[in-house]
Amino acid sequence: MEEIAFRQATKPDLPEIVRLLVDDPIGQTREVLSDPLDARYSSAFEAIDADPNQLFAVIIDKNTEAGEVVGCMQLTFIPGLSRTGMWRGQIENVRVAARLRGGGVGRRFFEWAIDRFRERGCGLVQLTSDKTRPDALRFYASLGFEASHEGLKLSL
Amino acid sequence: MEEIAFRQATKPDLPEIVRLLVDDPIGQTREVLSDPLDARYSSAFEAIDADPNQLFAVIIDKNTEAGEVVGCMQLTFIPGLSRTGMWRGQIENVRVAARLRGGGVGRRFFEWAIDRFRERGCGLVQLTSDKTRPDALRFYASLGFEASHEGLKLSL
Repeated sequence: MEEIAFRQATKPDLPEIVRLLVDDPIGQTREVLSDPLDARYSSAFEAIDADPNQLFAVIIDKNTEAGEVVGCMQLTFIPGLSRTGMWRGQIENVRVAARLRGGGVGRRFFEWAIDRFRERGCGLVQLTSDKTRPDALRFYASLGFEASHEGLKLSL
Repeated sequence: MEEIAFRQATKPDLPEIVRLLVDDPIGQTREVLSDPLDARYSSAFEAIDADPNQLFAVIIDKNTEAGEVVGCMQLTFIPGLSRTGMWRGQIENVRVAARLRGGGVGRRFFEWAIDRFRERGCGLVQLTSDKTRPDALRFYASLGFEASHEGLKLSL
């Protein structure tokens, strides 16, 4: 089993997180990897970090000396009225480094995330996945997610 | 045109909001309408109201003396890292009273909501809609929403 750990991201992780976001067929077209990092990423990280209903999580590779960031996921805790005031957990920005895919790391990361949602009393976990990513859709189905809804997006 | 207004919900609106949530084929099976109101709704409302990244909005019928609540929608403002730190707007818990459907009220409510997301700098608005609600899916398509994603749900 891979020697990995999951934890909340901190500001020094940010360049490695952006590198993960870029290393993706869809991400390549819409992210900016530069040194120093584009200030918009720092502002966004601060907004996430300051919000108690957001948890930006990373996977750390414990076999690397510096503890390389090899995955990330944003968890959002959303209070709601329907279903007698049920909280829902939401997942965005899931990435796992290419070299770690297919070995069960993603599954362990999701199980860890679902535990975080249970701790916060969420009755449901939701995410949307691009219909052009069949591997991702199979992965989510294997975790028990049901494709009961359309995921609708409107660009502003 | 209907004499209506849109505004942020306040605690006294809550019983009327729950009545709207119940008045729905899916909602009927999972909401509880009682007097006094189930305390879980009050707790949930307080959590939403205390979170600066949540806006629970209502439609008010100005033709009724008391200003009856005839629609609702929850707007969530989610900071994110991807797309160079783009904020996204999310919509949940949309309801419009049966007697006002089909007259353009829902469209005006969504246009109002989209303006709120623009004000907060969101680059995208998203929602999921149950695949068993064809009328809703047609309505969202007419507003420009694209069904590019699967909306995946996991009950805990």
